Amino acid sequence: MKNTLRKIVFITALSSSICFAQNTSILEDFKPSTFNQPGQEYPMVNSQGYARFKIVAPAADSVRVSLGLGGKGGTKLKKADDGTWMGTTDGPMDEGFHYYNVNIDGGKFNDPNALNFYGSTRWESGIEIPAHDRDFYALKNVPHGHVQQVLFPSPSTNTSRRAFVYTPPGYEKNTKAKYPVLYLQHGWGEDETAWMNQGHANLIMDNLIAEGKIKPFIVVNTYGMTNEVKWGKMKDFSIVPFQTVLIDELIPYVDANFRTIAKQSHRAMAGLSMGGMETKTITLNKPDVFAYYGLLSGGTYAPEEIKDKSKVKMIFLSAGSKERPERILDATTKLKEGGFNAISYVSDKTGHEFLTWRRSLLAMAPLLFK
Amino acid sequence: MKNTLRKIVFITALSSSICFAQNTSILEDFKPSTFNQPGQEYPMVNSQGYARFKIVAPAADSVRVSLGLGGKGGTKLKKADDGTWMGTTDGPMDEGFHYYNVNIDGGKFNDPNALNFYGSTRWESGIEIPAHDRDFYALKNVPHGHVQQVLFPSPSTNTSRRAFVYTPPGYEKNTKAKYPVLYLQHGWGEDETAWMNQGHANLIMDNLIAEGKIKPFIVVNTYGMTNEVKWGKMKDFSIVPFQTVLIDELIPYVDANFRTIAKQSHRAMAGLSMGGMETKTITLNKPDVFAYYGLLSGGTYAPEEIKDKSKVKMIFLSAGSKERPERILDATTKLKEGGFNAISYVSDKTGHEFLTWRRSLLAMAPLLFK
Repeated sequence: MKNTLRKIVFITALSSSICFAQNTSILEDFKPSTFNQPGQEYPMVNSQGYARFKIVAPAADSVRVSLGLGGKGGTKLKKADDGTWMGTTDGPMDEGFHYYNVNIDGGKFNDPNALNFYGSTRWESGIEIPAHDRDFYALKNVPHGHVQQVLFPSPSTNTSRRAFVYTPPGYEKNTKAKYPVLYLQHGWGEDETAWMNQGHANLIMDNLIAEGKIKPFIVVNTYGMTNEVKWGKMKDFSIVPFQTVLIDELIPYVDANFRTIAKQSHRAMAGLSMGGMETKTITLNKPDVFAYYGLLSGGTYAPEEIKDKSKVKMIFLSAGSKERPERILDATTKLKEGGFNAISYVSDKTGHEFLTWRRSLLAMAPLLFK
Repeated sequence: MKNTLRKIVFITALSSSICFAQNTSILEDFKPSTFNQPGQEYPMVNSQGYARFKIVAPAADSVRVSLGLGGKGGTKLKKADDGTWMGTTDGPMDEGFHYYNVNIDGGKFNDPNALNFYGSTRWESGIEIPAHDRDFYALKNVPHGHVQQVLFPSPSTNTSRRAFVYTPPGYEKNTKAKYPVLYLQHGWGEDETAWMNQGHANLIMDNLIAEGKIKPFIVVNTYGMTNEVKWGKMKDFSIVPFQTVLIDELIPYVDANFRTIAKQSHRAMAGLSMGGMETKTITLNKPDVFAYYGLLSGGTYAPEEIKDKSKVKMIFLSAGSKERPERILDATTKLKEGGFNAISYVSDKTGHEFLTWRRSLLAMAPLLFK
């Protein structure tokens, strides 16, 4: 997500990293990040959450990685005798997924060793600090749903637009079953690939279904057109183009091409960060389309904003513990006092990043379509 | 694909580029490459096939792009007054898709402005030189099939493996229809993403179906385990692990989870380059599994290699005109003389690159499942 927000997280995290300021405390149990490109050893992460990078650029004067707790300069790498540049973050990182990039002599590039993920309106390098609870999004030997790339007609934007549709395990065989649908949006700077790639939404769903914790449902991600506006100019963002695509084009396509329960009572919308803002606006504008609302680090509803209480089956509000979750908790209390079925979730020791949202999906999914 | 092969193409192409050696002949009608990241102006391509690059790295001493006809050094960029590095290839490139990377002070990075594609066992930058016949793989306002990411159980490799399954338009609605299947393999250095990303196989199928040129069929791509062997050590490659995955694990999964015609007579296998080698080996090893064989820049069959002629419905052999197509034509003649239904295709003015294979799919698809 946006650098400004990540910096807030880093500053909050500083106090907890002071005990690691001396290098002697770094455990030498580094392993390759799970998001490395095939066969690549670096970047590595250790059990404390430190990350270590290795970049080949023999004639460069300066190599810096954007991650690191020591300030906005990130981690400066040092040149080794073999011409490679190496360095370790000056403190442990938060658990979970982080976007990053590498500055070579003043230019911004990706780490050639890491996989790329779409964030900050570009494909950026990604690294994964193993979370203690990572089992819930692990690839396991359970039945797996399919993630379908669809190209749906969009007359309003005069093109075919892309969406990803998760169909649960058994969808192909249970040809008479019909399923509820969650429309799940990414944040600013990201696109429709985020929830399945860095979010592992398909694996979270597979595991929840395998454990019998949820009834199977369909999940749909599309591009929220969030990046048509610059960060910091959110007030210039008009919801109309995306709302038209979602309500008038994508939902009819999904209902026509998948075995959905095409009713308000079996349709949910949720989004992270700016996708939460979109979710709030669209669910309020279109109360007859969605019955379940989810804002993941994406704001709150006030009871008085919702015209017809009877149409809302559940409101889910979440945030990381490092991003002022009090406003989420306060809003939930007020919604409950107002007679709404509101539920809050706070992700422990995470900020405005994807582990917060993976966990939010884990917490929200069992509450949907009850 | 492999650099060695690309250099052959470049050398072959040199003669045709001599007339462009003087910069005065470069037309200033450059447009952004269609494979740029959202909003990026560079790299650009002009109507003659020249490519122009712009890289920001103010303090670098040397910036070079791996593409260019003038030798193995690629294109050296020059520093402009604003700190950016710019340069244009010293000749026109072949039409179609090219992998490339950017060398910054001796290190290999991707162009931050371009999308990445998996080739050479890493995610590399990609650029598209508009082909005169690009219409056949264009995104058009026609019904689009879905590309499904499946994770299929693979006991032999003790994991869930990924495949992409193209289901044709109407697959979801025509719930009684059953479809033939083409198993289509990538080349060395690539993976299961290649045919849909840089190959546009889904769009080629969509357009062929919309024009009524083929009956709809399913296309499946999975990782051929080709990169477990280093280039140049192909003799060390054992087909057994991949053959087991394909025959004993993937095909049963596809037949169980998709509405296929699960018969030899309605199953094809084809592959490009090293995927062709795999196709040849597996089709010869397993004559009861596939009835249609395709080798795309991937070798030939000799009539005496095929034990039971009656089991082979069609053999398709193709190559680019710049990669010694005579052997393809000769082999086709011999196969025909041997009583086989063999058909050859030569892609005009292309080498060992993806435009050859996009065109090969276009030529092969109408010959399948007749």
